[in-house]
Amino acid sequence: MTIPVPADVISRLKAVLGEGGWSTDPERLAPKLVEWRGRWQGTTPLLALPRSTADVAAVVGICAEAGVAIIPQGGNTGLVSGQIPQGEILLSTERLTAVRDIDAFDDVITVEAGVTLAAVHEAAAKVGRRFPLGLASEGSATVGGVVSTNAGGTQVLRYGTTRNLVLGLEAVLPNGEIWNGLKRLRKDNTGYDLKQLLIGAEGTLGVVTAASLKLFPILASRSVAICGLESPRQAIELLALAKAVTGGAVEAFELIGRMGLDFALKNVPGLREPLDARHPWYVLIETTTATPGEAEAAMGRLLEQAFEAGLVTDAAIAQTGKQMGAFWALRENQSVGQKPEGSVWKHDIAVPVSRIADFIEQATAAVIAFSPGVRVVAFGHVGDGNVHYDVLRPEGGSDAAHDALRDEGATLVHDIVAGMEGSISAEHGLGSMKGHEALRYKSPVEVAALRAVREALDPRRIMNPRALF
Amino acid sequence: MTIPVPADVISRLKAVLGEGGWSTDPERLAPKLVEWRGRWQGTTPLLALPRSTADVAAVVGICAEAGVAIIPQGGNTGLVSGQIPQGEILLSTERLTAVRDIDAFDDVITVEAGVTLAAVHEAAAKVGRRFPLGLASEGSATVGGVVSTNAGGTQVLRYGTTRNLVLGLEAVLPNGEIWNGLKRLRKDNTGYDLKQLLIGAEGTLGVVTAASLKLFPILASRSVAICGLESPRQAIELLALAKAVTGGAVEAFELIGRMGLDFALKNVPGLREPLDARHPWYVLIETTTATPGEAEAAMGRLLEQAFEAGLVTDAAIAQTGKQMGAFWALRENQSVGQKPEGSVWKHDIAVPVSRIADFIEQATAAVIAFSPGVRVVAFGHVGDGNVHYDVLRPEGGSDAAHDALRDEGATLVHDIVAGMEGSISAEHGLGSMKGHEALRYKSPVEVAALRAVREALDPRRIMNPRALF
Repeated sequence: MTIPVPADVISRLKAVLGEGGWSTDPERLAPKLVEWRGRWQGTTPLLALPRSTADVAAVVGICAEAGVAIIPQGGNTGLVSGQIPQGEILLSTERLTAVRDIDAFDDVITVEAGVTLAAVHEAAAKVGRRFPLGLASEGSATVGGVVSTNAGGTQVLRYGTTRNLVLGLEAVLPNGEIWNGLKRLRKDNTGYDLKQLLIGAEGTLGVVTAASLKLFPILASRSVAICGLESPRQAIELLALAKAVTGGAVEAFELIGRMGLDFALKNVPGLREPLDARHPWYVLIETTTATPGEAEAAMGRLLEQAFEAGLVTDAAIAQTGKQMGAFWALRENQSVGQKPEGSVWKHDIAVPVSRIADFIEQATAAVIAFSPGVRVVAFGHVGDGNVHYDVLRPEGGSDAAHDALRDEGATLVHDIVAGMEGSISAEHGLGSMKGHEALRYKSPVEVAALRAVREALDPRRIMNPRALF
Repeated sequence: MTIPVPADVISRLKAVLGEGGWSTDPERLAPKLVEWRGRWQGTTPLLALPRSTADVAAVVGICAEAGVAIIPQGGNTGLVSGQIPQGEILLSTERLTAVRDIDAFDDVITVEAGVTLAAVHEAAAKVGRRFPLGLASEGSATVGGVVSTNAGGTQVLRYGTTRNLVLGLEAVLPNGEIWNGLKRLRKDNTGYDLKQLLIGAEGTLGVVTAASLKLFPILASRSVAICGLESPRQAIELLALAKAVTGGAVEAFELIGRMGLDFALKNVPGLREPLDARHPWYVLIETTTATPGEAEAAMGRLLEQAFEAGLVTDAAIAQTGKQMGAFWALRENQSVGQKPEGSVWKHDIAVPVSRIADFIEQATAAVIAFSPGVRVVAFGHVGDGNVHYDVLRPEGGSDAAHDALRDEGATLVHDIVAGMEGSISAEHGLGSMKGHEALRYKSPVEVAALRAVREALDPRRIMNPRALF
């Protein structure tokens, strides 16, 4: 239970933020209090709308002194309810939108927390550079949120998660002090790397207010193909071949199951069957290089050897940019496409790449045995060992009945993940939804250490108090 | 001052380690009590030689209970006295030498802390893989040390520092508990990433006992060239060109100054002048690719455009493996080559890449004004913004006089670094030597946060207590 925020704290926050720097207007608040799938509805006594890092520091300082809790929110695209207040102060970064600096020589862009990922892409493109972090939600997802959840996306195979793309951070720590760690160094070994703690901390160790991000050369060549496969096992064999023959040019390697493809084709207008024949599984592969022609050559080598090895029986290489987009749309609409099919248990898991086929087999057998008729939509970033493993209610079944089994279903799936030394949250984080579950799988030694760190930096637990553990 | 270790603690440690699991023999201890350049001489009441992680846990547990301090030591190649005890228990990882697992499919090797970097290279090569972390000291440097100092080396430009190469860790925390974090996942967002704290913690947050490291495909092509340049400014322009035209194939981009080259040629047998004419500065470039022929093609493109742009007036591409080795030997002997020239102030700094030329100019003007006649040997990983900036005593001058100015010289150089938002320890760490100096440049906000984390995990400060701050 969240303790009500004292009226004098609200008054002080309003005073420090000034006219227009806060809101209690229900219409203004409404879109920030509901998670986009509608699974969580929140409430807050005050929406803080800081215009600067100093504003954020003032808000956190007042709250720290009073022991009042704060939920930071970026683009509200989180999937684990890390951004929805339940009575806490809601601190939105929507006005922290400055691109402070972009340097094509040092390959660095410094942006404030409220800048969207799409705006970073745009700013980078203007100076002939690229920021290789792509999310379906990139038009709304903000840098602060992406950093705080160590977001993954479709290019992790080549560029790593957000953690690998951050050179420096600025943040307001839980005591209200501003930490300027916006260095743009590739190497700095002068004590623990504080930014590594803040990345993926889901707002529990402070509010990220700005970030310096790595930029990369713009691409000169790009090739996208879709392959039809018999099984996930073939997919991981194809991945190994891709790593061996493309010289590091594989940027994305995404699995799509037939059921998810059928839902997308049925429920999303404008999508088309990618290959003549139907296949049980598909892989979307993208190769990219900074050398003209090399991505296409690498894709050609890969598919030739894959056919020879009998790993692939059918494949199509996109011939135009439009066709590349059409292939990607099949992958990107895996979530949207299943939505009209009713209630779903979602799992965002990772296992070692070599165990992906085992995981899908075992988990699918287990959930079907547990609740006959459920429909499995498995897709995701196979190159990273990350599967979005969605279990839909039986056709014609009741949403409520399926919802009632969600937690048991999750335990079933996650126990299999844990048995393979996997992760129950590969890229979405724990938020306030999965923290308790994580305790089932993390060692007490690790949990004690992480809690000690949190208590050291936020002794009154004011920062996103219900998130993590 | 380190408090003497109580006799009963020594007895308990001996008992738990058993016959052969410890030593007090001065001859056995001697090589572990002196830093390789001879700058620090240490002392210890007991050398602990654990054979297993459980042994390490037993030692740390006894010391934690008694409040007795421990210095962990790997290959004793550290440069900042992080590994030399001054009365503390010395815990060597030399017997933790198992390669626990190697998996060429998942591209992971799991090794114990005492395995040398060279042994990791060898094990990886046996399964057709590569671990891209190269250090001059790789025959002695161990995985535990490399992880604890977040070592850099010559391949950071392409592969990042050690931090980017670690998938999982096992460690004994300061309370004596074993943390098994040897997951081999590419993605895992389930709370703060504890391994990120341990990487670069220089043994202050526990003893790293094993690590899971990323492997990469073996190289199919490799090209090494040396270019003669007028100035460091040309070097950074050449770097920008290299990034633009080689499609990410540049693996190393190393600066060498004429004075350092002269010392190497004079003092190290078997080295040869690399180009016909003498140049004020040199850059060694290595390109590598997993695609046959592409590294050579990329190097060809780069040098052609560099000549056209007037950035390079003279260059040689190594024609044989032997010649590649000869070029690299010039770079690798920059430290050894200067040793006979007398006393030196060493600085391991980083600045944004674009500021390297400014840094070398300003620092050199400053140190010469401060102590006329000093000789500057600047070299290093320009691609990472990292310069080893060594200031040798004037020719024929006195070592003692030069030594006496070391601290003032360091402040002079480091103040310039700080003015460029740089780092006073790019890759060597702080050890017990540079912690105090780091306090001059780190913000009090950051220092307070890092100290709070340390105190939370090691309340009695038993782990490497004189290291960091």
